[in-house]
Amino acid sequence: MKARVTVTLKSGVLDPQGKAIEGALRGLGVAGIDGVRQGKLFEIEVADGVDAEATLKEACERLLANTVVENYRVEVL
Amino acid sequence: MKARVTVTLKSGVLDPQGKAIEGALRGLGVAGIDGVRQGKLFEIEVADGVDAEATLKEACERLLANTVVENYRVEVL
Repeated sequence: MKARVTVTLKSGVLDPQGKAIEGALRGLGVAGIDGVRQGKLFEIEVADGVDAEATLKEACERLLANTVVENYRVEVL
Repeated sequence: MKARVTVTLKSGVLDPQGKAIEGALRGLGVAGIDGVRQGKLFEIEVADGVDAEATLKEACERLLANTVVENYRVEVL
């Protein structure tokens, strides 16, 4: 089955990459953007018969997210 | 208002980063993962009174996505 994992910075954690994107958009003349924060997205194919929620939680805790500064969300589609 | 933009590789485009993550998960003993594709996520704050959909479409076309190899999706929250 398919699942989607999103990893985002916790609020309060500085995001220089997002700031750079915001500046670049302003430089390109794209008006009306007040803030950008960048995260990561993983589209994952999980084998049938596996507990997707538990497997992906383990994958996030051990590899995909740095839980000190990042939150993650698992959605089984 | 808040919006979320996701940028993913088009199907058929190789994703070596996703393959590396898949291999790393296998190496860590996380079983049951058949495939990983990595994308990008942008959480964007759009000023009030701005056409968020149109502004973000322009941002994607001009900066956030490489439309030759990537698809993007805009969700106004």
